[in-house]
Amino acid sequence: MEKIKVGVVGATGYAGSEICRLIYGHPAAELAAISSVSFEGMALSDVYPAYRQCIDLVCGTQEEVVAKSDVIFAALPHGLSQDLAAQCDSLGKAFIDMGADFRLESEEAYQEWYGGAFADKALHQKAVYGLPEFFREEIKDKKLIANPGCYTTAVPLALVPALKNGLIETDGIIADCKSGVTGAGRKPTQSNHYPELNESFTAYKVANHRHTPEIEQTLTKMTGEGVKVTFVPHLLPINRGILATCYARLKPGVTKDQLRQAYQAQYGGEFFLRLLPEGQVANVKNVRYTNFCDISLFTDQRTGTFIAISAIDNMVKGAAGQAIQNMNLSFGLPETTGLDLVPPAF
Amino acid sequence: MEKIKVGVVGATGYAGSEICRLIYGHPAAELAAISSVSFEGMALSDVYPAYRQCIDLVCGTQEEVVAKSDVIFAALPHGLSQDLAAQCDSLGKAFIDMGADFRLESEEAYQEWYGGAFADKALHQKAVYGLPEFFREEIKDKKLIANPGCYTTAVPLALVPALKNGLIETDGIIADCKSGVTGAGRKPTQSNHYPELNESFTAYKVANHRHTPEIEQTLTKMTGEGVKVTFVPHLLPINRGILATCYARLKPGVTKDQLRQAYQAQYGGEFFLRLLPEGQVANVKNVRYTNFCDISLFTDQRTGTFIAISAIDNMVKGAAGQAIQNMNLSFGLPETTGLDLVPPAF
Amino acid sequence: MEKIKVGVVGATGYAGSEICRLIYGHPAAELAAISSVSFEGMALSDVYPAYRQCIDLVCGTQEEVVAKSDVIFAALPHGLSQDLAAQCDSLGKAFIDMGADFRLESEEAYQEWYGGAFADKALHQKAVYGLPEFFREEIKDKKLIANPGCYTTAVPLALVPALKNGLIETDGIIADCKSGVTGAGRKPTQSNHYPELNESFTAYKVANHRHTPEIEQTLTKMTGEGVKVTFVPHLLPINRGILATCYARLKPGVTKDQLRQAYQAQYGGEFFLRLLPEGQVANVKNVRYTNFCDISLFTDQRTGTFIAISAIDNMVKGAAGQAIQNMNLSFGLPETTGLDLVPPAF
Amino acid sequence: MEKIKVGVVGATGYAGSEICRLIYGHPAAELAAISSVSFEGMALSDVYPAYRQCIDLVCGTQEEVVAKSDVIFAALPHGLSQDLAAQCDSLGKAFIDMGADFRLESEEAYQEWYGGAFADKALHQKAVYGLPEFFREEIKDKKLIANPGCYTTAVPLALVPALKNGLIETDGIIADCKSGVTGAGRKPTQSNHYPELNESFTAYKVANHRHTPEIEQTLTKMTGEGVKVTFVPHLLPINRGILATCYARLKPGVTKDQLRQAYQAQYGGEFFLRLLPEGQVANVKNVRYTNFCDISLFTDQRTGTFIAISAIDNMVKGAAGQAIQNMNLSFGLPETTGLDLVPPAF
Repeated sequence: MEKIKVGVVGATGYAGSEICRLIYGHPAAELAAISSVSFEGMALSDVYPAYRQCIDLVCGTQEEVVAKSDVIFAALPHGLSQDLAAQCDSLGKAFIDMGADFRLESEEAYQEWYGGAFADKALHQKAVYGLPEFFREEIKDKKLIANPGCYTTAVPLALVPALKNGLIETDGIIADCKSGVTGAGRKPTQSNHYPELNESFTAYKVANHRHTPEIEQTLTKMTGEGVKVTFVPHLLPINRGILATCYARLKPGVTKDQLRQAYQAQYGGEFFLRLLPEGQVANVKNVRYTNFCDISLFTDQRTGTFIAISAIDNMVKGAAGQAIQNMNLSFGLPETTGLDLVPPAF
Repeated sequence: MEKIKVGVVGATGYAGSEICRLIYGHPAAELAAISSVSFEGMALSDVYPAYRQCIDLVCGTQEEVVAKSDVIFAALPHGLSQDLAAQCDSLGKAFIDMGADFRLESEEAYQEWYGGAFADKALHQKAVYGLPEFFREEIKDKKLIANPGCYTTAVPLALVPALKNGLIETDGIIADCKSGVTGAGRKPTQSNHYPELNESFTAYKVANHRHTPEIEQTLTKMTGEGVKVTFVPHLLPINRGILATCYARLKPGVTKDQLRQAYQAQYGGEFFLRLLPEGQVANVKNVRYTNFCDISLFTDQRTGTFIAISAIDNMVKGAAGQAIQNMNLSFGLPETTGLDLVPPAF
Repeated sequence: MEKIKVGVVGATGYAGSEICRLIYGHPAAELAAISSVSFEGMALSDVYPAYRQCIDLVCGTQEEVVAKSDVIFAALPHGLSQDLAAQCDSLGKAFIDMGADFRLESEEAYQEWYGGAFADKALHQKAVYGLPEFFREEIKDKKLIANPGCYTTAVPLALVPALKNGLIETDGIIADCKSGVTGAGRKPTQSNHYPELNESFTAYKVANHRHTPEIEQTLTKMTGEGVKVTFVPHLLPINRGILATCYARLKPGVTKDQLRQAYQAQYGGEFFLRLLPEGQVANVKNVRYTNFCDISLFTDQRTGTFIAISAIDNMVKGAAGQAIQNMNLSFGLPETTGLDLVPPAF
Repeated sequence: MEKIKVGVVGATGYAGSEICRLIYGHPAAELAAISSVSFEGMALSDVYPAYRQCIDLVCGTQEEVVAKSDVIFAALPHGLSQDLAAQCDSLGKAFIDMGADFRLESEEAYQEWYGGAFADKALHQKAVYGLPEFFREEIKDKKLIANPGCYTTAVPLALVPALKNGLIETDGIIADCKSGVTGAGRKPTQSNHYPELNESFTAYKVANHRHTPEIEQTLTKMTGEGVKVTFVPHLLPINRGILATCYARLKPGVTKDQLRQAYQAQYGGEFFLRLLPEGQVANVKNVRYTNFCDISLFTDQRTGTFIAISAIDNMVKGAAGQAIQNMNLSFGLPETTGLDLVPPAF
């Protein structure tokens, strides 16, 4: 069988470069073309010397990527994907957007949190939200896929079975999340300068982060009720990983066994979701470099609180890996193709 | 004026060694004697080569420490302080306990969370809980001081003004805390082995940590109402610092200005509490090696949630520094003596 | 084709667990059996939760491993491999020793540095030193392979072409090496306790490390002259990687072009050796999780000094990866099978 | 006694901010004025929130600093100090330069390595090189002090007693140095971006670093012979500290006792130099936040090599602390004033 020709627009950013790395090990796809505004004409391995001899492809233009590829992954700043998506749509090419342009169904929410309008409303209708564990069947039929953000993958995966089965209250939910630094991208900033971040830990964008409406959209869709979440992200001095510690009030009489059964029922067949045995706690370290999401469940009977803790690699299940999972679905491949990876123990 | 003679029992543990370090810079106190079961006969600087030429005192016995000191700091495993405290009490010597033996007023709670009984109930009556910002006047009169734990300092400092002024609900409080590794002590364990902890992040003792009743005791005393807290600690791959992200439901109509005024009114005169300006977030990095507690306040109006984030150095304000603050109070010294330190910027 | 049945004795140590991880992705081999003295009866994924669902094999006995496997990797403390090797030899099974028992050809050197005698001298004659880039042809014929240590891979790869071509003096060579912490193994120690190692850096076993005679053995064999090296290892607060900064006096008149040509000639066809372009410096980060060795060359004309800097992942090219490279050679597979991995950029 | 009025030009850089921190704890000096081109009008504690309530001084102009201060510390990019030094000289004010403008006595060397000429040769004659352990008497008489660089402090302190006493050869010296990241300053760069530096280790400016001629100048002055050094710096993923591993050939017949005696004789009375007992190795962790330099000595009798390993905090003994030590000398204070600090054990 001929391999899927993969193109990456914005290949030198962290998400783009991670897609390239994962495609390198994908048995049914190959990297056909990459582009970068900042590094046009340079090999990807000049930007990332780790890739020497493995991914020496030279960055070309966005046009070249579109021309040479069956599927285009776009790792662009928010707002820049809509034109490219329209172009791919007209050419009948698959388009997987790593940014936020097609994630929110509500244009009002998009305007409030991102500040722009939908360029082409009809195009937005063609998009599907690419969280395969919840929207698998729709993704199979689509060629325009909005790949979720990192927090917006970790939090809904932690909460949906409890919400969907009516085991927790839909108000008063707290998502206290902690992310590794790669989530902030490749561009050096004062706050991510090594001596400033090392041995530090703080919250940022407290109750004010753009992933809030996206999390709420997924929870609301899966629950059938309006769900609001207090979302506070923190920055960890590690490279990779998100830990989402989610709190909700237990509905009266709900037991921890009921909760575990609900998760087991919904997630038992999911390859990438590992429901941990009672007592074990999800750890970002155990999912690094892979598409796994580890989930652990707790209840605080003293206070009537449900605590679900999930862990993902923000660059894989939270970005590039999930995008490839979506590609696999869209192209009719087994969902795990190229993603059957074991996390390193250290 | 003659200097206070300081003794440290358990000087080679992390808390004990940190007391020694801070006493080195204290203008009105001097290290008179130290003891260690594991390292008897060795100099403290043999255990911690960082201390060479500065603290070369040799570890002797507990008896020697008691004999030579005006104040005895005990950094012992839980359960081992009660006899020593009784001895100091009978000799009229000040005793500051770094462990949990005298922290809980309720023997029932002590039995439930620590598993033992009070050895001498009358002695427990003589103890004061050494959180100076809340119990300053009582501490001045006492010679038996139970120094608070680290989380149990950070969480109440974050919440008390809001609770005391009736601005938040007393149920449904969440304390999502993150601590540096020194909190787990000097003894090597698998989970704190460098390759296992590095690049990792997880929660532990979820809703099951012994600091829970101690936090609730302080909140209840300061509020006059029974307060329960869902407390989830996490382990950060950094050496020092606790960040406590605390969530509570706002009472109807409460504004963020009211909250800020309550904190300003209660904490405005406190040297060690730095209430950060609106928009700034507490960061463990900014309090390292000092006795400061930084506090930042937020509200999520969308969900009616109050968010208070506090940061301390778990080994200083969360242990050794607060102990010296208590010593200063007990000996009639200005509270900041030896503790007027500026946190390093990096 | 049937897959090679792989057994790992000592599978729960760092080297053993890394072999298991790499075999998971090997298309022509499968993990048949593992053993562990400390964790017999437990699944490998209980010891390393990262491996859940991927490597859930249960630790059995050494005997079971030998019985079920075509090739036995032994990750045992020094001194314990000789009996097992003899047993495998008698059964005609391939044996790859991760320890030092068969690395030194000189029994005298072994006694001096390790303190024991050769148990079976004839068996030692059957062993080959498994550094494929230098001894490939011999390895192909052997079933008893002594896998090199980590420093002993990095230093010779940095120096051999210069030495072999007579471009540097054979005396006065300095190898200043820096290793990540995994090299010290899984067992918690005071010096690798997170708070003690974090933000630290020091040398250890200065001019006294057991890898010294092994480095000298390889350099001497490849050069035909007795070569001595001053070897000083340092401990880096990172998980993986060795950087070897090697210094030697240039022979009179030797130019940097001559040096580069010698390395290009010897290493040009080696898949795992990446000779970096002039001006680039090898970095441990760029080889992590892979079998690559990056090599960079410099001369200090002011002082007549040659500087070769090599970087490997101590757990892969310095241990498990090289062992699998040796297995591939021994079983007639392409040398890169299962090892064609791209290092993550971050 | 009135306190010395201290001014810092370039106070918001790492070296400048560290001077401010150390002056805060200095009993005989006070911060009178600070300046910053980038942050004029902002408080230092706005740039470094760690300093809140401690150093809230507002950044003014260079002119204000000169007007208000008895001593001016200049933490400026190379080339910008000469005019300011001339101005201070004409006003009779003490000037301590953290940059390289006055470090090299040879204008030729300055031109070769820094690319500029001496603006005022007479002024250069008035400058003294501020390495107090070697040039104490001269510093006492001077008001224009060139504060050494970090590597240029660590390497000579490691080597001088051996060289001065003729115990090692003066050629073939290697200084393999490793530095924490603060040495590269506050400005974010790609290579110091957290995700790129974390878990990395490499060399830079191999045999090509500007500190080379400065190291050689000190060694040559102290030895009376021309000394050349092969100097290779490496970048450690830690905040603070330099470890200098220095290699030299032993002169025939020299014993390790002779070496130790030479160091003991020269350094025995030096407060800031801690000569470690045999077998102990200097570690950057043990000198952090203090002005200590730890020194450890080894010989490799197999190869006839002397190995001296020194550790300093690059921001203290390697910058701000040494500058204050120089100020103390210049103002007739005890050399340790404000610098009698114990390194934290963790």
